[in-house]
Amino acid sequence: MQTNPVVDAMLSHRSVRKYTDEMPPDDTIETVVRAGQQAPFAAQLGSVLLQRGGKGIPFGAPLLFTILVDVHRLELVMARRGWTMKMNDLSLLVFGIQDACYMAENMVVAGRSLGLGSCFIGGAPYRAQAIAKKYGLPERVFPLVQLTMGHPDEDVPPRPRYPLPFAFYADRYPEFTDDEITEAMAVMDEGYLAQDYYRTGNYMIDLEGGREETYTFDTYSWTEHMGRKWGQWFPSPEKLLEEFEKRGFRLTGGGGD
Amino acid sequence: MQTNPVVDAMLSHRSVRKYTDEMPPDDTIETVVRAGQQAPFAAQLGSVLLQRGGKGIPFGAPLLFTILVDVHRLELVMARRGWTMKMNDLSLLVFGIQDACYMAENMVVAGRSLGLGSCFIGGAPYRAQAIAKKYGLPERVFPLVQLTMGHPDEDVPPRPRYPLPFAFYADRYPEFTDDEITEAMAVMDEGYLAQDYYRTGNYMIDLEGGREETYTFDTYSWTEHMGRKWGQWFPSPEKLLEEFEKRGFRLTGGGGD
Repeated sequence: MQTNPVVDAMLSHRSVRKYTDEMPPDDTIETVVRAGQQAPFAAQLGSVLLQRGGKGIPFGAPLLFTILVDVHRLELVMARRGWTMKMNDLSLLVFGIQDACYMAENMVVAGRSLGLGSCFIGGAPYRAQAIAKKYGLPERVFPLVQLTMGHPDEDVPPRPRYPLPFAFYADRYPEFTDDEITEAMAVMDEGYLAQDYYRTGNYMIDLEGGREETYTFDTYSWTEHMGRKWGQWFPSPEKLLEEFEKRGFRLTGGGGD
Repeated sequence: MQTNPVVDAMLSHRSVRKYTDEMPPDDTIETVVRAGQQAPFAAQLGSVLLQRGGKGIPFGAPLLFTILVDVHRLELVMARRGWTMKMNDLSLLVFGIQDACYMAENMVVAGRSLGLGSCFIGGAPYRAQAIAKKYGLPERVFPLVQLTMGHPDEDVPPRPRYPLPFAFYADRYPEFTDDEITEAMAVMDEGYLAQDYYRTGNYMIDLEGGREETYTFDTYSWTEHMGRKWGQWFPSPEKLLEEFEKRGFRLTGGGGD
């Protein structure tokens, strides 16, 4: 492993869920967004809306960025050259989410390098229409994810990740052995348990369908948490399809013209 | 604007399309991937497959990373705890693409900090099944994007971006004035023309449907290029839906159980 200030900023990343009241200066905010903007893109399909302070910001953070997949803006530009959107909405979203995410991740790392902590809030797609109303988003603009940011008021450690061989494959996708799966799960579960992460945050997800609880915060950790989240929630895509549709994206239909 | 080595690495980003033959050392590659892995995640849904040298790597780069949305691995872990995937595939992809992109963008910036250039290759989703065969990807693993990387053998400038007010909105989404659109287009078009980007790369997209060509490389620039790409290509989502389906993702149907 090599090291430098850039790699250090990434390896020491941790999501921050407690902030001081201090409002970061405009200059710092602008630097964060410019660093985001310079990320690679397919079509500059990402844009950023910022709420400074006020109600409804998770963790009471001073800043809430809403990261947008912004097809509206591209269509305005295209219209000036006599073009209308032909690309289908599914492809637009696959590219647009990428553009928005490359930008957002630069903002996370740039923020950290300037002394700011942050935390992604993943639920925006399920509340897309409500967020659109709050911020006056036009059709063809989809709120992908939100990002709280501010000066950290907690000092938490970086969280565990899978062992590298469970995430980085040479030449061919491997067939994982039972031992490799066991080890990867142990790294995650023991890592989070050692940090008392779920107890501190009171993050245990309830069991549905009358399943009997057999875990306590002494045993409940990352893999069980993942199982409960992905094994119980949102079996149907209808709600999300509806949010996309209300924002003007039809994922299985034709393009915009 | 503030500055530091992290922000500098981002603001000086440019995609690199010409590489020396030198193979980056294992240590450097591992650092790049570890920096990627430590990005924020919803469920560690991103993983990375690396081809070192050999045929079919764009620009003759020494390294080709394929960035994967890896639901297969999560399902292996969940199964060990007695869970089966319930989350619908559309939601899985919206979260999975985010996890994969945050990782990938860290890799781009970490690579640059270690002297490596890179370039995203966006076409992977349309060739998902072919890539899966080449690398032995199991079902429920989707190749989202590829990333060439190596020592740069060209020194190109950072490319223009929209003016900040056209990308960063305070409190409410703005109604863009005609002048703002004109200015944003001028910044992009004049910026790329000044770098002779499209002539140097011979990147002019052909007009379809018998439209008459009125541009030369003296006038053809970013906004016309965008118009031709998004205004002519892939009107139907069928091809992409089919690639997702072959990889085991049904975007409009139920979840995995």
